[in-house]
Amino acid sequence: MSKLMEPGVVGDGVCCTPLSGPLMREDEAVELAGVFKALADPVRLRLLNMIASAEDGEACVCDLTGPFKLSGPTISHHLKVLRNAGLIEGERRGTWVYYRVVAEKLTRLSGLFALPVLTGT
Amino acid sequence: MSKLMEPGVVGDGVCCTPLSGPLMREDEAVELAGVFKALADPVRLRLLNMIASAEDGEACVCDLTGPFKLSGPTISHHLKVLRNAGLIEGERRGTWVYYRVVAEKLTRLSGLFALPVLTGT
Repeated sequence: MSKLMEPGVVGDGVCCTPLSGPLMREDEAVELAGVFKALADPVRLRLLNMIASAEDGEACVCDLTGPFKLSGPTISHHLKVLRNAGLIEGERRGTWVYYRVVAEKLTRLSGLFALPVLTGT
Repeated sequence: MSKLMEPGVVGDGVCCTPLSGPLMREDEAVELAGVFKALADPVRLRLLNMIASAEDGEACVCDLTGPFKLSGPTISHHLKVLRNAGLIEGERRGTWVYYRVVAEKLTRLSGLFALPVLTGT
């Protein structure tokens, strides 16, 4: 059984800064813009989706090329962009590389977009 | 008093599809990539942050230019990109346009990055 994580709360309760929170520094904005640039591509979004939804939480690179009409090197390039943005990490085991999402990064992004709602006291 | 919204749950309980959920269609990925392209800019991220954190939930365009070393038309261009991506909406009242975030859009993005966690049954 699984349930969704609360936004902005990672394991030990450390909260990620939401957009509705304090003003972000310029260098934070530059770093975050780089992450969104990595996400601003339909193929990379679908790759991330396939990795995030893979059984056991990891996907073999050998299973990620089939669904696309793209060459292996092109898929490898997109995976490298996602990896450089800190969204996925890969581990070589034998012939293949296996990818999984970086949970802390995705949870930080979830918390970024979480909005405060007014509730009764 | 305010508390954070649960990810992926909008008002009536309709859930936004997380990356760890079903595979997204190609047209969904294209639409979503467009939203991230709008977010892939440090100035636009800081503008969105300023609007999301504004008192009463809205910011006058007259208050959004000051913090940047950019011309009024450049700021207007960035606001237009955020607006076209469905992230903010504006309302003209008298001389000025007032912007607020589109809560449903941000909540959808929060839900997109929410990860399932294993819990005991």
